[in-house]
Amino acid sequence: MTHARYYHAGCPVCVETEQTLLELLDPQIKVEIVHLGQAPARIAEAEAAGVKSVPALVVADKVLHLNFGAALADLK
Amino acid sequence: MTHARYYHAGCPVCVETEQTLLELLDPQIKVEIVHLGQAPARIAEAEAAGVKSVPALVVADKVLHLNFGAALADLK
Repeated sequence: MTHARYYHAGCPVCVETEQTLLELLDPQIKVEIVHLGQAPARIAEAEAAGVKSVPALVVADKVLHLNFGAALADLK
Repeated sequence: MTHARYYHAGCPVCVETEQTLLELLDPQIKVEIVHLGQAPARIAEAEAAGVKSVPALVVADKVLHLNFGAALADLK
């Protein structure tokens, strides 16, 4: 079982991208959805994982930045 | 069976993203890899699908722009 984290900020781009992406992923991948607008304490965790903007998917040490929604700096 | 197209331009970002992304996708999705540097005639097709930059994954009418590699305009 692979664990992934999808970081977003609730913006329209984030929500649409989430729907598109999650449908495509291997059903064996368990994805935790993290709304950084509602959980700003986790912004540091996202940054430490290499996230520069949202939406982004983090899997192990890899970051996939997707359709640009917002820079992480703008969420602080 | 879902068909998708992964457009890239052979840049390091494109190749690394391809490896990360393809591992995560549902094995039932068949992905055609299109190297726009080697097949510039297909740039128009990518643009028509809504691709603005590579790498990008196109599925049905949805486009996922991933870790920025190059603007499509720079490939012409």
